[in-house]
Amino acid sequence: MIRFGLIGAGRIGKVHALAVQAVPNALITAVADVVPAAAEALAQQLGAQVVSIEEMFNSSHVDAYIIASSTDTHADYLMRCAEVGKPVFCEKPLDLSYERAQRCSEAVQKAGVPCMLGFNRRFDPQFSTLKQHLQAGTIGKLETLIITSRDPAPPPVTYIKVSGGIFRDMMIHDFDMARWLLDEEPTRVYAVGSALVDPAIGAAGDVDTASVTLSTASGKIAVITNSRRATYGYDQRIEAFGEKGMLQANNQLENTLLFAGTEGVMTAKPQHFFLERYADAYRIELTQFVQALQQDTQMPTTEQDGLQALRLADAAYESWKSGQPVDLT
Amino acid sequence: MIRFGLIGAGRIGKVHALAVQAVPNALITAVADVVPAAAEALAQQLGAQVVSIEEMFNSSHVDAYIIASSTDTHADYLMRCAEVGKPVFCEKPLDLSYERAQRCSEAVQKAGVPCMLGFNRRFDPQFSTLKQHLQAGTIGKLETLIITSRDPAPPPVTYIKVSGGIFRDMMIHDFDMARWLLDEEPTRVYAVGSALVDPAIGAAGDVDTASVTLSTASGKIAVITNSRRATYGYDQRIEAFGEKGMLQANNQLENTLLFAGTEGVMTAKPQHFFLERYADAYRIELTQFVQALQQDTQMPTTEQDGLQALRLADAAYESWKSGQPVDLT
Amino acid sequence: MIRFGLIGAGRIGKVHALAVQAVPNALITAVADVVPAAAEALAQQLGAQVVSIEEMFNSSHVDAYIIASSTDTHADYLMRCAEVGKPVFCEKPLDLSYERAQRCSEAVQKAGVPCMLGFNRRFDPQFSTLKQHLQAGTIGKLETLIITSRDPAPPPVTYIKVSGGIFRDMMIHDFDMARWLLDEEPTRVYAVGSALVDPAIGAAGDVDTASVTLSTASGKIAVITNSRRATYGYDQRIEAFGEKGMLQANNQLENTLLFAGTEGVMTAKPQHFFLERYADAYRIELTQFVQALQQDTQMPTTEQDGLQALRLADAAYESWKSGQPVDLT
Amino acid sequence: MIRFGLIGAGRIGKVHALAVQAVPNALITAVADVVPAAAEALAQQLGAQVVSIEEMFNSSHVDAYIIASSTDTHADYLMRCAEVGKPVFCEKPLDLSYERAQRCSEAVQKAGVPCMLGFNRRFDPQFSTLKQHLQAGTIGKLETLIITSRDPAPPPVTYIKVSGGIFRDMMIHDFDMARWLLDEEPTRVYAVGSALVDPAIGAAGDVDTASVTLSTASGKIAVITNSRRATYGYDQRIEAFGEKGMLQANNQLENTLLFAGTEGVMTAKPQHFFLERYADAYRIELTQFVQALQQDTQMPTTEQDGLQALRLADAAYESWKSGQPVDLT
Repeated sequence: MIRFGLIGAGRIGKVHALAVQAVPNALITAVADVVPAAAEALAQQLGAQVVSIEEMFNSSHVDAYIIASSTDTHADYLMRCAEVGKPVFCEKPLDLSYERAQRCSEAVQKAGVPCMLGFNRRFDPQFSTLKQHLQAGTIGKLETLIITSRDPAPPPVTYIKVSGGIFRDMMIHDFDMARWLLDEEPTRVYAVGSALVDPAIGAAGDVDTASVTLSTASGKIAVITNSRRATYGYDQRIEAFGEKGMLQANNQLENTLLFAGTEGVMTAKPQHFFLERYADAYRIELTQFVQALQQDTQMPTTEQDGLQALRLADAAYESWKSGQPVDLT
Repeated sequence: MIRFGLIGAGRIGKVHALAVQAVPNALITAVADVVPAAAEALAQQLGAQVVSIEEMFNSSHVDAYIIASSTDTHADYLMRCAEVGKPVFCEKPLDLSYERAQRCSEAVQKAGVPCMLGFNRRFDPQFSTLKQHLQAGTIGKLETLIITSRDPAPPPVTYIKVSGGIFRDMMIHDFDMARWLLDEEPTRVYAVGSALVDPAIGAAGDVDTASVTLSTASGKIAVITNSRRATYGYDQRIEAFGEKGMLQANNQLENTLLFAGTEGVMTAKPQHFFLERYADAYRIELTQFVQALQQDTQMPTTEQDGLQALRLADAAYESWKSGQPVDLT
Repeated sequence: MIRFGLIGAGRIGKVHALAVQAVPNALITAVADVVPAAAEALAQQLGAQVVSIEEMFNSSHVDAYIIASSTDTHADYLMRCAEVGKPVFCEKPLDLSYERAQRCSEAVQKAGVPCMLGFNRRFDPQFSTLKQHLQAGTIGKLETLIITSRDPAPPPVTYIKVSGGIFRDMMIHDFDMARWLLDEEPTRVYAVGSALVDPAIGAAGDVDTASVTLSTASGKIAVITNSRRATYGYDQRIEAFGEKGMLQANNQLENTLLFAGTEGVMTAKPQHFFLERYADAYRIELTQFVQALQQDTQMPTTEQDGLQALRLADAAYESWKSGQPVDLT
Repeated sequence: MIRFGLIGAGRIGKVHALAVQAVPNALITAVADVVPAAAEALAQQLGAQVVSIEEMFNSSHVDAYIIASSTDTHADYLMRCAEVGKPVFCEKPLDLSYERAQRCSEAVQKAGVPCMLGFNRRFDPQFSTLKQHLQAGTIGKLETLIITSRDPAPPPVTYIKVSGGIFRDMMIHDFDMARWLLDEEPTRVYAVGSALVDPAIGAAGDVDTASVTLSTASGKIAVITNSRRATYGYDQRIEAFGEKGMLQANNQLENTLLFAGTEGVMTAKPQHFFLERYADAYRIELTQFVQALQQDTQMPTTEQDGLQALRLADAAYESWKSGQPVDLT
């Protein structure tokens, strides 16, 4: 039996907790949150104890941690995990500062604690099947990758201001996906971006519409496009093109109904947002984390992946600001 | 050079005429129609002569005939073709009376004139490709056939009254398609029908919604469903199911555009009606007729096909009237 | 807290048990099975007690029953539930004999115990959304219903022999679906069937390929086609056609990937079989059963639905045997 | 009656000639080609005269010209048309040299002769319907445009060497499409490219895999990706994303058949190459050219469009060479 301490009892913390509870020989035994009522409510549902953050890291009743608190606390808590030498699953991102993320990664590496970073999309059955096809050679050598990622609606501008910007906050997922699928580190990054959805986002120094081109040493090209708003829901598609053909992972629609009427032929919209679209991915992600601990195998993603994705995000930001491509070495 | 005489200068006569003109070494040289102005207009466009029906059959300048006049004249004109011993393409149906159609077929057979009946759908590239797949064994042994055929809107009740009824007027195409794809004559016919679209159709002694089940000696099953009205356009689909899988020939949409918006994901409607949906089929049909004449090969469809389809239509009518299945021997 | 006694610890019993455990204030507390080891294994997983059938019905610690045992035991156990006056969820079918099912239904009615019959497909999100559209008038008045239902592979002939035949064993689901969607009882049934998949099925007096046409008093037409084998997986589709258009509930594919290569454009197969295709439906079904008990509301399906579906199956069987349509009054 | 002189009797010249012949009151009366046999064959089919280039431009029997000769002759012949003051349809591109194309454009402008440039894709019914939707506001303000364009197989390297490179030879169509749909001139161009399909293309100083990002003053983003080889045929898609939703113009498949078998669900490949995919577009293009002459209205595309597309191609080439974005003012 592995006993987990959950830090952060909000929406995503709850998702992770329920995923853990469904794995045999795994239990959430302690919950901490800066909002005590949130911790209380979730702890009760899970049959777990409410503890303070301090108690959490000092407890001998906790074998591993799940960090689902706000972004600015991730690095601190990860370092605490490293200090106490216990395994940790941490929501992405590591941190908004590359330097801080790097220090944190070094601490984790030095302590040798297993650390998994929550790049949930890698565990989406559509995308992981696509990855398997790439590995199996279905399209032969990959040449071009086109990732489309659009949110249904922009977050409040108050969030935008502390988010780190579209490249670090939203496109970070796509950078990780690109790295994973390209199976090669990008060496050049070129970004364009505009505030077309909401001028207030532009006024906050950010953009809501962006496209990034990544090139690799072997000549592969990846193009990512993002928008903070899509009237038709959460648009999450990947197209991989190569010497033997093309693979597309298309949107999952809310249902398979089709209506043919006077206006045309209508089908459902894509599933609304990440909690619906990636419900399976969140479940699989935590299951794999627990299994990796139980079987003492390698973590499927690590804090290194977080660091590399952040590096691409920083380069994209710099490219957008300067109007010039940025070389990574 | 083969010189064709066209009888009937209406909508479908024009379609056939233009198809003939596009074939090398084939020309429409004479046009006849009960409405002289119609004959005039088309003849001028084609550079052909206007002639009377009598002149048409007596002319030494006409090598073959195309009958595109009203249904009630088909049998007479076919027999005239048989008398003068010249090849003929005739629009479906042969006639609404099986006995008359049979006499007509006997005359044609006796005279030995090449005769092609206009079951245009066999020449539709979708359906002929499906037929090729069946012949090539793509789905192995055919077991079940599902034919869906819906018109965008019912014809006027005045037409319904002289049409011979839905089974002889509309489903006749599907009976031919079923015979062709089953590659075996149905031995039992069961029909149900209702006047759900327009009570006036019911009052005229006909139905507008019908389904027919055909069974063959080897156990194959074909189900045909018809409606005289579909708000989304002309619905023409075939599903063939067999031991190795399923083939579907789906509707051709007006365009390939897709619009994703707040209401869902919308694509275009099926092409509106037979002139659009079967434009290629009409062209290919006449081209094959002319080529069969030029190369002296077998006609791809004959008046026998018309006769057999009519036999199924009559059986369906009888089944609908009696509520009992009708056996064919 | 409602305490459930589960009778039958096989594959489907397990599915139902896990669904119950996920509902708040509901627990499986007792498990019985003719195979003690099966009861043991599941009881342990659920934290429940193993009991005998007798103990099950005499227990004061059980508030309601779930019958997931073999078909031939359903009627007996339902009557025991009626005797002890406790609510029951019963897997379909009620029984293979209409008379016995009727006696059973009368007992349940007389006792006034809430009884839900497991027509799982009504709870499939695709089909229940389609039903909602019909109720909301999306296609106006329903005119034609086309239900396609094909299993990936036939069961062993030993099963076929005790199954009651394709109409009672397999098409029973489609009869229920037709009744539910037509919202009107069929008055005439015509069936055709052939043993095309496996001659041994024919030798056992059954068919593996069948089509049934149902007509209603108001003139609606429903066509059901079944096959015991589809190379491409579990084919479960419904098409509803009416005055304002057409609704289709299409297959759910194993994934949304598309591969374009030299052979064409390939997508995944439909989900393999009922446990995959109807996983959500099974969960929702039991959740609604428990909720109806907790809130003392009407059962979404009852043993009456089982009785009526069986009546259609019997009529279809008789029609297939006689070659004549069967009228229901 | 407008009498056309056709210069170039090759594959595309023939396509244009047949399109003209189908328009009422329009005839190809003269044909010239550097290969006399080609001119002979086509002239005979059209009932036209074979003439020399000199005779062509001196003839008083020719009212307008169609230039379908090799790329390097376009500019010269256009200038001859300008000299003799007669309207001209010219295949794209104007020329591979921007300076020469510009001189040519100035000559045409000065002479005031109607000049249409053959950007055939604008006349594709899919893409022109998409354009109409953009103009009608279906997706509101356009924000992102994604154009995918892949050829089935690369041309011979001997052709690559004189083609002007992928940006001027292949992506030129996409630059025109982007300008047309964006309805705003791009102000910045960034290109990446690799020789991944065939190293010989790289050795010839060109690439076969490329992506270009265009930005406009108002902040719109267009991304074009090209490949010289797609195993599944000619891939021609456009996605337009905006404030009210997304429009996609997808590939037209060779047929609408679907096959479901043990491997999955298979549909046809996209139509093989430009002659198939754009057959309608070629026909509509010439029809509109002739109609614009007959009705004395504005040409739907002009040599100015050719000039602007070439400017973008040159900028893309420069960007690819330098690795830096290129600003256009």
